[in-house]
Amino acid sequence: MKILLVICDGMGDRPSKYFKGKTALQATKHKNLDLLAKNGSAGIMDTIAPGIRPGSDTAHLALLGHDPYKVYTGRGPFEATGIGMDLREGDVAVRCNFGTVKNGTIVDRRAGREAFGLDELGKALNVKIGDTEMLFKHAVGHRGALIIRGTGLSDKIGDTDPHEEGKQIKTSVALEPEAKKTAEVLNEYIKKAQEILAAHPMNKEREKRGFPLANAILTRGPGLAPKIEKFEKKYGIKGGCVTATGAIAGVTKYCGLDTKLVEGRGLASDLDKKTDMALDMLKEKEFCLLHIKGCDDYSHDGNGAAKAKMIGKIDAMIGKLVKKAPKDLIIAVTADHSTPLEFKNHTSDPVPLAIYGQTMRRDNTKRYDEIECAGGAIGRIRGQDLIKILLDLAGKTQLFGA
Amino acid sequence: MKILLVICDGMGDRPSKYFKGKTALQATKHKNLDLLAKNGSAGIMDTIAPGIRPGSDTAHLALLGHDPYKVYTGRGPFEATGIGMDLREGDVAVRCNFGTVKNGTIVDRRAGREAFGLDELGKALNVKIGDTEMLFKHAVGHRGALIIRGTGLSDKIGDTDPHEEGKQIKTSVALEPEAKKTAEVLNEYIKKAQEILAAHPMNKEREKRGFPLANAILTRGPGLAPKIEKFEKKYGIKGGCVTATGAIAGVTKYCGLDTKLVEGRGLASDLDKKTDMALDMLKEKEFCLLHIKGCDDYSHDGNGAAKAKMIGKIDAMIGKLVKKAPKDLIIAVTADHSTPLEFKNHTSDPVPLAIYGQTMRRDNTKRYDEIECAGGAIGRIRGQDLIKILLDLAGKTQLFGA
Repeated sequence: MKILLVICDGMGDRPSKYFKGKTALQATKHKNLDLLAKNGSAGIMDTIAPGIRPGSDTAHLALLGHDPYKVYTGRGPFEATGIGMDLREGDVAVRCNFGTVKNGTIVDRRAGREAFGLDELGKALNVKIGDTEMLFKHAVGHRGALIIRGTGLSDKIGDTDPHEEGKQIKTSVALEPEAKKTAEVLNEYIKKAQEILAAHPMNKEREKRGFPLANAILTRGPGLAPKIEKFEKKYGIKGGCVTATGAIAGVTKYCGLDTKLVEGRGLASDLDKKTDMALDMLKEKEFCLLHIKGCDDYSHDGNGAAKAKMIGKIDAMIGKLVKKAPKDLIIAVTADHSTPLEFKNHTSDPVPLAIYGQTMRRDNTKRYDEIECAGGAIGRIRGQDLIKILLDLAGKTQLFGA
Repeated sequence: MKILLVICDGMGDRPSKYFKGKTALQATKHKNLDLLAKNGSAGIMDTIAPGIRPGSDTAHLALLGHDPYKVYTGRGPFEATGIGMDLREGDVAVRCNFGTVKNGTIVDRRAGREAFGLDELGKALNVKIGDTEMLFKHAVGHRGALIIRGTGLSDKIGDTDPHEEGKQIKTSVALEPEAKKTAEVLNEYIKKAQEILAAHPMNKEREKRGFPLANAILTRGPGLAPKIEKFEKKYGIKGGCVTATGAIAGVTKYCGLDTKLVEGRGLASDLDKKTDMALDMLKEKEFCLLHIKGCDDYSHDGNGAAKAKMIGKIDAMIGKLVKKAPKDLIIAVTADHSTPLEFKNHTSDPVPLAIYGQTMRRDNTKRYDEIECAGGAIGRIRGQDLIKILLDLAGKTQLFGA
C-alpha cells in the first residue's frame, strides 16, 4: 500500500461575513471531498499544537514528522533550498533583498521591486571572505538568498536590513560570543557587495532603463541549516513531492523528498496535471505529498469568492483522483493551517482531515468541513502524528515491543 | 471507590472482509459492553501514541502510567519476570532457546521444539562465571530466560543466536566499551553450558526417545532490568492483576502489581472465575487489572468467527461483572492495542474505551465500538493518561497547586 497526502494550503477558515458566518468549506458544495470523509474517517488536526499559528514551512516540517521547535532555525535555510541552492548542514543561510543606496542611505529597500538584471548581478556576488564561502542566488522580484559556508559559523547574528527606508545599512552584531566571526564576515561581505554592484555594467543598464540601482544587499532572518533526518532514512521508504511553491519545495527537499517544483498556482493552475504527476511518482515511491496552493493566497487577499471557487476546483480534482488511484492507495486530504478570510493571515484553528483507504475505519462523517470532521472517528490529532498514522495504515511501520 | 481495569487484548480492529467492511466490534452484538458505554462515557485511546504500534508489553507499561520509551529495555527482562524469575534492578536478562549443535554447527535452533527434560537441564545451567551469577530458567517449549547478575554489567551486547541454522553459535560482541565484561561472561557461559548439557544424563534420555539433543543455549534480546517505580509507591494504593499470559504477568509484577497468573485463554477460558478472582482481589486492594487474552490470538490467526465469539464471551462476562460489582467500583473496559483480522498483527489504530461508575459523566454513546466510542465525551486520549483519570474518578489523587 502507498500513501498520497494532499495538502490544501490555507484551506481552513473561521466564520466569515462573506459566507454568512460559515467557513468557506461549510458554505460550499464539494461532494468528492465529502465522499472521502464518508467512505473513510475524518478528524481535525493542530498542525503544530493547539493555539500555535503555523507558517507553511513549520507546518510542513511537522507534517513530515519533525518537531519544528527542534529543527526550525529560521526562514533563511528553507528559502535558500526553495530556490534550488545546495544547502548543507552547518551552513548559515540568510534572506536578502537587493536595495538602492544613495550617499550611504537606503532610499529603496527593494530596488523598485524590479528584477531586471538581478540574476546576473546575483552571480557576481559569489565570493570568498577569508576562508568563508559566500554563495548568493537571486530568487524572484528583488529577493535573494545568501549561504555562508565555512568553519566556526553561528546564526546568532543581527540583521543588516534596518527594515526602514531613510536609514543606513546596519552593522550585523554577534548575539553570542561564538557568532563574532560570522557577523564580521557578513559585514565585510555587505561592503564588498556594494563595491561589486556599483561597478557592475548591469547597473548601468538598469539606470539606462530608468530602474533604481540595485547597489546593495540587505540581509535578514539568518538560520543555521538544521540537522534533519532524511525521509528514506527516517521511514525506510522513498517519498516525493509535487508543489508550485518554492518555500514548500525548500522544506520537502531538505527533508529528503524527491521534489518536483511545477508551474501554476491558484485558479489558473492545472490540478489534473499535478495529480497525474503525483500518481506517476507513486509508481516508484511509497509516499507523495501533493501541495495545492490557492486557498491561502485568496484568504490573504480576503477574497471569499475566489476561495470558494478554489475549493470547487480542488473538489473536482479529488473526484478524478479517486477514480484514477490504484485500489491500495491511502489518500489523506488536509491543510497545513487555517487562513481565515477575515484575518487574512495564518491562524492556529485546527484544519479538517479525511483519511480514505482500504485499511482505514469508516466513520459516520457526512461532510468535509471544520465542524463535521471534528465529530469523526479520528478525533483531534497533531500534525507530527499524521505521517506515522498513514505509514501504519500502509503497513510500513515497526512494532514497538512484543 | 475502587478501580477495575479490563484489558481485552487485541480487541480493536480495522474494516474486515469477514464483517463486510466493519470491525468485529461494529458487526457483533454486545449489549453489556454497550450498556457500560451508555451509562458511562466513551472515548478512544492511543495506548502509546498516535501511529505507534504497541507490543503487549509496552502497551501495559503505558497503561500503568509509565513512558515505555523511557523504561522499555527489550523483551528479555519482562520475559524473565513473566516466567516467575526474581528480576532485580541492574540485572541483564536475555531470551534463550535450547538448540541442537553437531560438530560446532547449529542443526536445530529449537531442539525439535521438544520440552522433554528441559526443566531439569535448565536447573543445571545455574552457575557462576567469575563473580557473576548466571540464573537460568526453562519457560515453555524450547524457550528459556537467563539473568546475568553482578557488577559492571551492560545490556549493549550482541546476540549469540545467529538466527539461522547451519551456522555456528556467534560470539557475543560488546556494543559499547562498558559492555566488554558482560559479553565475555556470556561467551564463557555459552561454552560452559554446552559442556554441562553434553554431560547431563537427561540428554541421554532425550536421545533414547528420539528427541534432538538440547546441547546448547542460544541467546537474544538482552535488556537491562529497568528502574520502574512500583505501583504502591507511585500511586499510594495497592494494586493487583489477573492474567493468563506470562509476558503480561512479567510486566505487571515488575510494575508492582500483585499478579495472579491463571490458566486458560481464549474461548476455552473461564472468564467468570477470572472476574471473581479480580473482585476478590479488590476486597483488599484499590486497583485490579483484569487481562483477557483471546481476541488477539484469533486476530493473529485471521479467525473472524472466533474473534466474534470471544467478544460475545467477554460481553457475557461484563454483564455478570456489573451485577456482582460493588456500587462504588469504577469499571473501565478497553484494549491494549488493535490487532486487525486482515493485518494479523498489532497496529496503532486507537482502541475503544468505556469508563463506568458513579463519578463518571454519562455521555450519549449508545454502542461500544471503535467508531461510536470516538464520538464519546472522553475524546481521544493516550494510554499513559488512563490510570490517572481512573485514580481521580476514584478519589485517589492529589491536587496540583491550590
